[in-house]
Amino acid sequence: MSVLRDFSAQLCSGGIRVVDLTAPLQSTTPILQLPPPFGNTVPFQLEEISRYDDRGPAWYWNNIHTGEHTGTHLDAPIHWVTGRDGRSVAEIPPGELIAPASVLDFADRALQDPDFLLQVNDVQVWESEHGTVHGWFLYRTGWDARSGDQDNFLNANETGPHTPGIAADCVAWLLAERSIVGIGVETAGTDAGAAHGFDPPFPCHGSLAGSGRYGLTQLQNLAELPPTGAVVIATGLPIVGGSGSPARVLGLVES
Amino acid sequence: MSVLRDFSAQLCSGGIRVVDLTAPLQSTTPILQLPPPFGNTVPFQLEEISRYDDRGPAWYWNNIHTGEHTGTHLDAPIHWVTGRDGRSVAEIPPGELIAPASVLDFADRALQDPDFLLQVNDVQVWESEHGTVHGWFLYRTGWDARSGDQDNFLNANETGPHTPGIAADCVAWLLAERSIVGIGVETAGTDAGAAHGFDPPFPCHGSLAGSGRYGLTQLQNLAELPPTGAVVIATGLPIVGGSGSPARVLGLVES
Ligand SMILES: [Mn+2]
Ligand SMILES: [Mn+2]
Repeated sequence: MSVLRDFSAQLCSGGIRVVDLTAPLQSTTPILQLPPPFGNTVPFQLEEISRYDDRGPAWYWNNIHTGEHTGTHLDAPIHWVTGRDGRSVAEIPPGELIAPASVLDFADRALQDPDFLLQVNDVQVWESEHGTVHGWFLYRTGWDARSGDQDNFLNANETGPHTPGIAADCVAWLLAERSIVGIGVETAGTDAGAAHGFDPPFPCHGSLAGSGRYGLTQLQNLAELPPTGAVVIATGLPIVGGSGSPARVLGLVES
Repeated sequence: MSVLRDFSAQLCSGGIRVVDLTAPLQSTTPILQLPPPFGNTVPFQLEEISRYDDRGPAWYWNNIHTGEHTGTHLDAPIHWVTGRDGRSVAEIPPGELIAPASVLDFADRALQDPDFLLQVNDVQVWESEHGTVHGWFLYRTGWDARSGDQDNFLNANETGPHTPGIAADCVAWLLAERSIVGIGVETAGTDAGAAHGFDPPFPCHGSLAGSGRYGLTQLQNLAELPPTGAVVIATGLPIVGGSGSPARVLGLVES
């Protein structure tokens, strides 16, 4: 039997289970709130075209108004100035986005400190137990539990948002020393909430895009994936010239 | 070695190839044009928020305005009145949308007759060579070659659009006698262009939705899939209450 037929048979029989890592899209989906003079994204909104009525007697459908970077979404390299000559979201070969996942769970640390930053040493300790990180680097912080409430999700006070992230030198080390497809997080962006004040600002965005790698944000249900052995399928829409896209992200795990 | 690790290794080594079945999304992506008094979808449009400028010095991003049923997309059962008590697009278990594909190529017939309708007998002749259809029923007509030009794609004259489809009794037979996930086509909708005049109108939409099954439209590159043996991953966005969604559709084939 071929590998594909084996795979397909296991999906049918339930030997392989599909975990939905995607947040539902609706008007309450949290969005970033940048201070003036910066531009902001529109909230996700459906606009009804017809619903079994005079505008369409047998059919229901909507227009969609949203941002490229809303809900669970993919950052393409051209999203950031360091990747401006890199790939748009439509130029990413979709096969690159299907890859094994290394899932690092630091929810206990983020619970103690919302500004927690993952360090190289934290990754090395994880590797001593689970092996070298590769494929999708998925960073669990428990932040998905907050995604139903925008204020709780962005967790901002007078000094700005406070959400966990990855230290600048840890991202640089991952990109230089490990072979990863990209970084996936449960927060609104791949950088920590306080990264506007880092030097340089937003180091995770800058390093990922500059290396032609990808970001995945607002993931949920990472707790259902094992530390290693899952395969993640991350599919954005092929928006020509797009800087990113709402994405459907699925984890395949053995039952 | 586990099935998932085998699968992942084959993806890395190129033993399994990913074929993108998705049309690029841009302002020229063809959209349906319904006559008055019916509502119509907005064209796909990006609205720039910032591009490495005063509105966002280090970042480029856009808002998106589109329809749920634009480009390569997924029809959920509630899209049609026959499925109004069925699933919205967010309620479809994503594992159902990863399935083996039966790919039926009738491009030669559609070239001779743009109103060509697939009949039960055509499917039975195909089955005598390739086995029983199952999983995703993908119907190739060569129509993807027209997708760069809306007029050529919709192919309308004074009697309305003329694009190939599936006969009403063939769809009913597929749903009653075969186990399929849904029907995928290269045209703007799962019904033939002339189906507004059928009795009942739009039988493919009505039967699919009434059976809780799914439609996939404006596929491309079906010619790169074998008649059997490919696995198709069709991922829409989990739009709460949505009638459908732009989708990324990928075919996995053995090299
Ligand atoms: Mn983003
Ligand atoms: Mn549709």
